[in-house]
Amino acid sequence: MRIIEGGITAPKGFLAAGAHIGIKKVKKDLSLLYSQKPSVAAGMFTQNIVRAAPVIRNEKMIKAGNKIKGIVTISGNANACTGRQGLLDNEKMAEIYAQMLHVKQQEILTAATGIIGKEMPMKTIEKGIRSITPNINASRQSAKDAAEGIITTDTFLKELAVELDIGGKVVTIGAMAKGSGMIHPNMATVLAFLTTDAVISQRLLQKALIEAVKVTYNMISVDGSVSTNDMALFLANGMAENEEFTEDSQEYQQFLEAVLYINKKLAVQVVQDGEGASKMMATVVTGAKTKEDAGILAKAVINDNLVKTAIYGEDANWGRILAAMGGSGGFFNPEGVAISFANEKGVIHLMSEGQPIAFDENKALEILAQRDIIINIVLQDGLEEAMAWGCDLGHEYIRINGEYRLKT
Amino acid sequence: MRIIEGGITAPKGFLAAGAHIGIKKVKKDLSLLYSQKPSVAAGMFTQNIVRAAPVIRNEKMIKAGNKIKGIVTISGNANACTGRQGLLDNEKMAEIYAQMLHVKQQEILTAATGIIGKEMPMKTIEKGIRSITPNINASRQSAKDAAEGIITTDTFLKELAVELDIGGKVVTIGAMAKGSGMIHPNMATVLAFLTTDAVISQRLLQKALIEAVKVTYNMISVDGSVSTNDMALFLANGMAENEEFTEDSQEYQQFLEAVLYINKKLAVQVVQDGEGASKMMATVVTGAKTKEDAGILAKAVINDNLVKTAIYGEDANWGRILAAMGGSGGFFNPEGVAISFANEKGVIHLMSEGQPIAFDENKALEILAQRDIIINIVLQDGLEEAMAWGCDLGHEYIRINGEYRLKT
Repeated sequence: MRIIEGGITAPKGFLAAGAHIGIKKVKKDLSLLYSQKPSVAAGMFTQNIVRAAPVIRNEKMIKAGNKIKGIVTISGNANACTGRQGLLDNEKMAEIYAQMLHVKQQEILTAATGIIGKEMPMKTIEKGIRSITPNINASRQSAKDAAEGIITTDTFLKELAVELDIGGKVVTIGAMAKGSGMIHPNMATVLAFLTTDAVISQRLLQKALIEAVKVTYNMISVDGSVSTNDMALFLANGMAENEEFTEDSQEYQQFLEAVLYINKKLAVQVVQDGEGASKMMATVVTGAKTKEDAGILAKAVINDNLVKTAIYGEDANWGRILAAMGGSGGFFNPEGVAISFANEKGVIHLMSEGQPIAFDENKALEILAQRDIIINIVLQDGLEEAMAWGCDLGHEYIRINGEYRLKT
Repeated sequence: MRIIEGGITAPKGFLAAGAHIGIKKVKKDLSLLYSQKPSVAAGMFTQNIVRAAPVIRNEKMIKAGNKIKGIVTISGNANACTGRQGLLDNEKMAEIYAQMLHVKQQEILTAATGIIGKEMPMKTIEKGIRSITPNINASRQSAKDAAEGIITTDTFLKELAVELDIGGKVVTIGAMAKGSGMIHPNMATVLAFLTTDAVISQRLLQKALIEAVKVTYNMISVDGSVSTNDMALFLANGMAENEEFTEDSQEYQQFLEAVLYINKKLAVQVVQDGEGASKMMATVVTGAKTKEDAGILAKAVINDNLVKTAIYGEDANWGRILAAMGGSGGFFNPEGVAISFANEKGVIHLMSEGQPIAFDENKALEILAQRDIIINIVLQDGLEEAMAWGCDLGHEYIRINGEYRLKT
């Protein structure tokens, strides 16, 4: 596997564009993706009962096995909690893009992110799609523009591309994601778009996506809120002309590893760019009784407001970590817990066998002053492990979220 | 029922004291309560797996039906995550207070709140208890001192007393509570102490406490964190000499109403004084399918960081309310939801039948500029209802919790 410079347009036959069309005040707010050949499509969607119009429509289409030729995404308006009109507007958005591409409406997926419960500015959207579609191309810049068109409060673009040699053919995977607010485990928690030119069945593509999302996007959290809009979409157009993967083949394993790699990189970037985040914490739980317990405990730590504010304050208040674990519902024996903080500055052991350890405050401060902090939690209850990623909770989060709607 | 001026010493035979003994830098950190006659005792305790030493000991004693003569509480050190030494120190604290009162160690309950995982300053505590115990008395000031001795980051005292005429006798109930951080549903979520001179069985006292905690302390949240230390204790010393209540009697109902009243008042005060809170929100869910759904939905709204920051920002971003409900796991049909904000400045309807309603931004701002905001959520799924209380999430919460340990 080679990491290559590129994004969503890196695989053969994928074109893109992104632009500002007037939904948001200044920033890009439209992102177009086009696949020259019909793609098989996989998708994972928010578990929120309240689901945005694009979530409802895409899920239906992917379940039905539709072949996909394009995705139109707008940012600045979530088209969620918009009732029947929202469903019609979303359908209309697909229709306009389909017309422009001369493909069927059923070949277009949609996505939206932004403010909830606001009517879609359909005139702006229609005019925008019509004027920007002619610009789609496979250049590096277009991929960047498309990645910019999906973000909201993100402060940097999240894209990645890798190449694989599989059975004498070069298979490429490209991806872009957005995150920042409303990011929480329990679903495909961000807008994540993946493209590949691999020849793969829809079933296996879906399987790879599920496996990757489970240990990446589902293990990150910025604010514990579950969005109405989040989804991960994965298109495969077959243009690499590899022999179709079979489930037990080494080729599929190779492909899956690359998909895991990309999603983990992007998921961690989403956390690093969490709304108002100044620090990233990775929690590693080992020695748990079950995989499920490990996951619950790891996620409880990164989700806890008191842990998050302590990390923000560079305060080695490990008691809050133990308290968060204890309140999570995940099983562990408190008398077997060891906790340490680590990063490039070293390690400090804070607790062992459930007992506090005296530690050097200066060393702790040195470690906690860094941007990335690893929280190691070693249990004595079994052999299972899990990893979760979160960010601190500081003044910037309050500033951004206390003023979001009136400023957008 | 009459509200009277007073606190924990209002019922006959209860004495108290509170003082600064040197656990904290300046503020009072010791609170003593004494009952002249042995009291029956009820208690509810944190559901956190990690439980502070006083929680472990008290629960055992109350289950065993011990008669209680006193409670010793320290603030500034939680005696949680302190291992075997913490259990011994806690026992020692009870022993010292028992010695001073000339009662048995098994007649003394203990409580602690403050920083987790820090060794107990036993010399300071011993010296403090020995010097302060002689000061206990039944005055109004002593009740206030005791209420001050249990608080940590609280900004005002939480106490209350009521009188009831029951069967020709005057029964009095007094209470004090602390809250502020680590306040979350799912348990007896604060330190709450209630005293009464009523003649009542331990079983019925426990029943009244459970019933009250369920709809009051268990329905408030400041930060979603589940403490290792929280408990509600209720002592009844029988000095009012009423005829013992029976479960189905009107007298017990009268008593229960008063207990509900006191706990609701104090629970709401805990939220109003939430760490860094500038606003209080009460969420009322009606028309839910089940009582459980109503409770889950109401609590999800007051717990959601995005809702909390929106309230802080005085932003009528109701979409976040619906998103929080949708992600909670509680059932509801999104197409039947109505949401409105209300308080003394009026009402604004934001959503009806699952569709957004255009509303007057100025009116919304006027309502949201107030300190207390009621969020009404009307569903069309059934006849059940629930109420929950929470606070906003603003810069003060970050300031307090980002710097807590180093400043204590």
